[in-house]
Amino acid sequence: MNDSQERIASSFAAQGLMQTLGAKLALVADGEVHIELAFSRHLSQQHGFVHAGAITSVLDSACGYAALTRAPQGCEVVTAEFKINLLRPALGERFLAIGKVQNAGKSLTVCTGEVRAFAGGEASGKVVALMQATIANVAVRESD
Amino acid sequence: MNDSQERIASSFAAQGLMQTLGAKLALVADGEVHIELAFSRHLSQQHGFVHAGAITSVLDSACGYAALTRAPQGCEVVTAEFKINLLRPALGERFLAIGKVQNAGKSLTVCTGEVRAFAGGEASGKVVALMQATIANVAVRESD
Amino acid sequence: MNDSQERIASSFAAQGLMQTLGAKLALVADGEVHIELAFSRHLSQQHGFVHAGAITSVLDSACGYAALTRAPQGCEVVTAEFKINLLRPALGERFLAIGKVQNAGKSLTVCTGEVRAFAGGEASGKVVALMQATIANVAVRESD
Amino acid sequence: MNDSQERIASSFAAQGLMQTLGAKLALVADGEVHIELAFSRHLSQQHGFVHAGAITSVLDSACGYAALTRAPQGCEVVTAEFKINLLRPALGERFLAIGKVQNAGKSLTVCTGEVRAFAGGEASGKVVALMQATIANVAVRESD
Repeated sequence: MNDSQERIASSFAAQGLMQTLGAKLALVADGEVHIELAFSRHLSQQHGFVHAGAITSVLDSACGYAALTRAPQGCEVVTAEFKINLLRPALGERFLAIGKVQNAGKSLTVCTGEVRAFAGGEASGKVVALMQATIANVAVRESD
Repeated sequence: MNDSQERIASSFAAQGLMQTLGAKLALVADGEVHIELAFSRHLSQQHGFVHAGAITSVLDSACGYAALTRAPQGCEVVTAEFKINLLRPALGERFLAIGKVQNAGKSLTVCTGEVRAFAGGEASGKVVALMQATIANVAVRESD
Repeated sequence: MNDSQERIASSFAAQGLMQTLGAKLALVADGEVHIELAFSRHLSQQHGFVHAGAITSVLDSACGYAALTRAPQGCEVVTAEFKINLLRPALGERFLAIGKVQNAGKSLTVCTGEVRAFAGGEASGKVVALMQATIANVAVRESD
Repeated sequence: MNDSQERIASSFAAQGLMQTLGAKLALVADGEVHIELAFSRHLSQQHGFVHAGAITSVLDSACGYAALTRAPQGCEVVTAEFKINLLRPALGERFLAIGKVQNAGKSLTVCTGEVRAFAGGEASGKVVALMQATIANVAVRESD
């Protein structure tokens, strides 16, 4: 693992919510991060599918960490805002959230993301959600 | 409880994710729903604050159920999309997500929402997130 | 007019698009700006109502200028992003775009806005659009 | 021109705003529509660049018409909502708005779009804006 991968793996491990959801960091590349989520009844909405909130949580983290791979030295990132379209019910055995940097500015990074749902031996999955997110660079405080 | 309140309480209880997050239905009124969330390390991001995904999850549910209070007879609702701004770190002992209907059309309902963070004996809390959401009415299938 | 009002009136007058649309600055207050638009066939979509793009343009400007009333000394503002819901067809004789600051941070300001449509002697109008916008403060360059 | 192209060309010609902005329909393909905009001072914001509202207007139309190429027989479309990120100042001699269908459901179509800015003989241009939009199918009224 390079520095960026180590930094993100360590930050991800510190996110209580990702552990609560059972999410796993699957890929950290320059400008792109993948997070995996397995189906669980603990993540469901009222019809037994995965709740939009769980789908959104992993996709927000994937976009945020993708932005972090492009953040200037000495900066960390916070999500300023995002928008998500939920295209169809999140039906599947496992889900892959893919966050990608579209533009890294001096203070703001814009990412797009999608969540793919997989069942059985499917190769490419079905896109269940699309996100467009704005992530802000913030200087790391000295005491951190 | 009236019919709408019973229906929403029952649907909320069936949402595995809301139980996993420790969220509680706090108010169901005509066009407005409140959901409470207590701080827990299980919901944190890497700095120990509540993760944007948890904040978003309860606010999405609050907006969806607010829309349901105005849905036509025989319809249930699904979130088509939402946008959320995260105004400041979600620091607090407890959080209140408030979803309100702004316009209920024939097939789409537009809601706005906010999450307030409370610490100590604070009365009104600080707004940490603002949402604007589009919720679609869908006819309940006969077998449901 | 105070300094902020003069600055905004002068900036508004320099926006070619606002003149092309026939938009008028109606109110500049602390954290709130109103822009008026009269109906014209030059602004229509294919059914003769006002095009969402014209509605969006004046509401974006109203939110941007509302943010400017709260920007730090020596800063101007640029819209980083916004989201708009179009609640109903923009039918009316005149339209009022209202932009309001919800939170002014150090580098980002979050505004909400609405456009009201008026016909005949209506007092309060009908809300035809809702916006949630993120506006960035940028330091004015010395040569400006 | 096939039926879909003729229908869209005729609808576009009826949009007063597109003529006011000087926009031109450049491509109509299955699930994808391009609209061109030439720089003009009549479209400017206060610094002389093209106003976000003009950029947004053509991109909204491009997404809407892209959705129309996939709408069921007997339906027209209306934009329910969209979100746009403005990545950099809209500097250029001409602009190309590209709208693409990402998912066409029974009642809602989700599109993504971008605006590219061109100066001189540039081939691919710079992306100045990214959109994610939700477009609703509506049954054509008999009298239309």
